[in-house]
Amino acid sequence: MNYGQWVHSELNSACQAAGFRFTPDREIERRLSGVREAMEKQEMEALLVVQKMDLYYFSGTTQDGLLFVPLAGEPILMIRRELERARLESPLKGAVAMGSLRELPSILKDRYGRLPRCVGMELDVLPVKDYFRYAQLLGGARIMDSFPLIRDLRKIKSPFEVDLMRRAGWIGKKVYEEGRRILREGMTEIEFGGLLEVVAKTYGHEGLLRVRSLNYEAYTWHVLSGSAAGIVSQSDSPMGGLGLSPAFPVGASLRSMGPNEPIMVDFGTCYHGYQADETRMFSIGKMEKRFVDAYLACREIHDAVLEDVRPGADCEALFLKSVEIAEKLGYKDNYLGPTGLQTRFVAHGIGLELNEPPFLAKGHSYPLEQGMTFAVEPKMVFPGEGGVGLENTVLVTADGYEVLTPAAQEIHEV
Amino acid sequence: MNYGQWVHSELNSACQAAGFRFTPDREIERRLSGVREAMEKQEMEALLVVQKMDLYYFSGTTQDGLLFVPLAGEPILMIRRELERARLESPLKGAVAMGSLRELPSILKDRYGRLPRCVGMELDVLPVKDYFRYAQLLGGARIMDSFPLIRDLRKIKSPFEVDLMRRAGWIGKKVYEEGRRILREGMTEIEFGGLLEVVAKTYGHEGLLRVRSLNYEAYTWHVLSGSAAGIVSQSDSPMGGLGLSPAFPVGASLRSMGPNEPIMVDFGTCYHGYQADETRMFSIGKMEKRFVDAYLACREIHDAVLEDVRPGADCEALFLKSVEIAEKLGYKDNYLGPTGLQTRFVAHGIGLELNEPPFLAKGHSYPLEQGMTFAVEPKMVFPGEGGVGLENTVLVTADGYEVLTPAAQEIHEV
Repeated sequence: MNYGQWVHSELNSACQAAGFRFTPDREIERRLSGVREAMEKQEMEALLVVQKMDLYYFSGTTQDGLLFVPLAGEPILMIRRELERARLESPLKGAVAMGSLRELPSILKDRYGRLPRCVGMELDVLPVKDYFRYAQLLGGARIMDSFPLIRDLRKIKSPFEVDLMRRAGWIGKKVYEEGRRILREGMTEIEFGGLLEVVAKTYGHEGLLRVRSLNYEAYTWHVLSGSAAGIVSQSDSPMGGLGLSPAFPVGASLRSMGPNEPIMVDFGTCYHGYQADETRMFSIGKMEKRFVDAYLACREIHDAVLEDVRPGADCEALFLKSVEIAEKLGYKDNYLGPTGLQTRFVAHGIGLELNEPPFLAKGHSYPLEQGMTFAVEPKMVFPGEGGVGLENTVLVTADGYEVLTPAAQEIHEV
Repeated sequence: MNYGQWVHSELNSACQAAGFRFTPDREIERRLSGVREAMEKQEMEALLVVQKMDLYYFSGTTQDGLLFVPLAGEPILMIRRELERARLESPLKGAVAMGSLRELPSILKDRYGRLPRCVGMELDVLPVKDYFRYAQLLGGARIMDSFPLIRDLRKIKSPFEVDLMRRAGWIGKKVYEEGRRILREGMTEIEFGGLLEVVAKTYGHEGLLRVRSLNYEAYTWHVLSGSAAGIVSQSDSPMGGLGLSPAFPVGASLRSMGPNEPIMVDFGTCYHGYQADETRMFSIGKMEKRFVDAYLACREIHDAVLEDVRPGADCEALFLKSVEIAEKLGYKDNYLGPTGLQTRFVAHGIGLELNEPPFLAKGHSYPLEQGMTFAVEPKMVFPGEGGVGLENTVLVTADGYEVLTPAAQEIHEV
C-alpha cells in the first residue's frame, strides 16, 4: 500500500482509537488572535515559530516544521517530514511540504508576495547558528524576540488546556494509589520510580516532562529516600538526589529503601503535552516522628499559601508568607534546601513547560490572574538525613483556586 | 548537620557505593590537550563551554556551571549551584562558585588578568539571547563557533569511553533477555516499553537519551507493533510509530499487541552518559513469513555493511552499498521508510549524543577512523502493515570492528 493512501484511510482511525484529542479550531483561532494583538502593539509584522511546544500551541501539531503567522492573512504551516500527519493533527488549512529550509523564502514570497521586514522568533531558545541562517534566508529582516509575547499568552490557560492538565493530575492520582501496592522494603529508588512510570504510561502519560532551557533536562520523577533526599544537585530544587552517575546526578538512584525513612516521590505527569506536578510522601512502616512533623509543617505552609490564592494576589508576597511560616515553625535551616543552597521559589508555573510564569518567588512581585496554573511545593531538607515535601498543581479561578492533582495527601505508609 | 560537612564526609561514599565512575584525570588531560591543539590552529584564544554534555566531556561533572579553557594555563570550572559536588566529580582543580553570570568577567580577570579577545562557544546550541549576554559580559570579545572542534574530538572514543558504551550495550542485552519473559498477548506497546525501561534502569540505565538539537527529544524506546510500525512521524527515522498524542506523536502507543505481528523494539541505553542503541524483533507466536523474510534481508544488509567496516572505509559508499543490496533483494519501496519518506542514512554516530559523526549516509563521503562508534540500523517499512529492522552499535577497531551490543539477533518468539 502507498503511504499517502494509508494515512488518509487509516491513521485518523488509529488516532481516534488511541484516544488522541486534536486541538479544536476555535482554540487555535483564539491563540492566534491573542498573539496578533500583542504583535501589533510591538509592530511585529510576522511570527516565525520554531520551538516544538510553541508550534504545538499555535498549530496543534508537533511534526517537524515551522509556522509563519503574518499580522493579517492566513498562517502557513511548513512541514519537513510528515505533511499528511500534520494535516490530520492541525486545524490550520494550507499546510505545505518544505523539503529543506532553503525553500523558506520562496514559500513566503509565493504566499504573501514578499518577505517580512520584521519577524518575531523565539530568541530565548533559537541557537545562534540557526539565527544567522534565518537572518540570511529572510533577506536581512529585523528579527525580534517573540518569546515574551508567547509566554504572556501561554500563561493563561483555556478550559480546553485545563481539562488536559486535570487529566494529567488524575493520572498522578493513579500513580500514587498504585505506588502503595508497588513499594516494598529493599527495592531501589530507581526500580520504584520506573514502576510508577509504567503505571502513568498505561494511562497515557507521555514519559517526558519539558523545561524551556538549553541544559535543564526534565525527567518524570524524583524518588528520594533517606539520606539521598538530603543531597543537592544540578536542578534548581530544594533537593536533587544522588542520581545514577556524574552524567545524570539527579533523581532516583540505585539506593535500596529501608524501613521508617521518609521516601519523597515528586512525580510529574504529562497528558497531550500538558503537565501536572505533585509530590507525596511514602514510608515502609511508620515514618520517624521528626520527619512526620516536618511534613505537617509543609502541609501547613501549603495550605496557608493556597488560602491567599486568587486573582490579584501578589506572587512574591505569597512566597514571603511561606518563608515566614517556615521560620515560625522552626524550619529556617531546612526550608527549601540546606542553608546556603536554598531555592528562592515555593511555586512555579506549569503547562506545556515546567518553568512558565507565574513564579511564587523572591523578586516576582506581580498579581496572580484567573486561568494561571502553578505547582506549589514547600519542602524541607535535612542534610545527611532526609527530606520531605508536598506539592500540588493548582488553577487560579475567578475567586480562589482549584487543585488539579487530587491524590490523597496523607503519608502513604506501607 | 551542616550541608558542606555532610558532603565531605558522606557523599563520596554514597557515590562509591552506587558504583559511580568518575572521569579519570588523565582522560580529562588528554581531551583538553586535544582541543587546545585544535584551538591553536584556529587562533581561538579560549573556550567557554556551556552545553551539558560538552561540560561533562571536558570536566567530568554535569553540575550547573561553565568551563573556561584558556589556550595556556589552568582551566576554571565555575559552578552555579552545587560546588562541593562538582569538586568531587571533576578532577579539575580550582573550581569556584559563581552566584550569577554577572560574576563571569571578574572571575576571569582575577584568574587571568584580563578578558579574552576571541572565545569559542557552542554556537550550534547556544540561544541567541544568551549569546548577546555573553558578548556583553566578555567586553565585546569575538565569539567563534567551537562546536566543530569539539565534535571532531568527541568522535574518536577512548578506551575509557568505549568501556562505558560496552556496559550500556550489556544493559541492552539484559533488556532483550528479560523482554522475552515480559511480553504477552494483549499488552500495550507502552506498557511493554515501560517494563523494559525498568529492567534497564535497575542496571544503571539513565532513562534519557540525548540528541544535540533544539527540538529533537530522545526517549528510550520505539516499541512498534503491526501497523503502528508503518507510521512515519517527526523523527528522522524510517518509522516513527503512533505515539501517545499530537504532542508526543512518536514511539510506543496504547495499541495492544496481537499474535504473529512483527514487534520492533528499538531500545537505547545510557550508562554514565554513554549510549548504545540497538533494535531487535519480537513476536507473539510465529511472525508472518513476509516479515521474517524482510528481517532476514535487514540482517544481510547489516552484515554486508559491517564486512567493509575498517579505518579508511568511505561512509557514503557503505550507505550506497546498503541501498544496492536492499534493491537487489526486492525492498526498494520499503528500505529505510515508505517511498517519498525514506531516510538517507543507514548508521549514525553515537556516544554522549545520538547524532554525532560519523553518518553512513548520502553526501557523507569521508573515511571511518579507528575509535569511531556508530549504530547501524537497516529497517523496512510496510505502510499499514508493519515494520522490521536490526540495529547494533559498533566500534571501528584497528583492522575491523567490534559489536558493542551483544544481544542475540534471532527473532524473539514468545
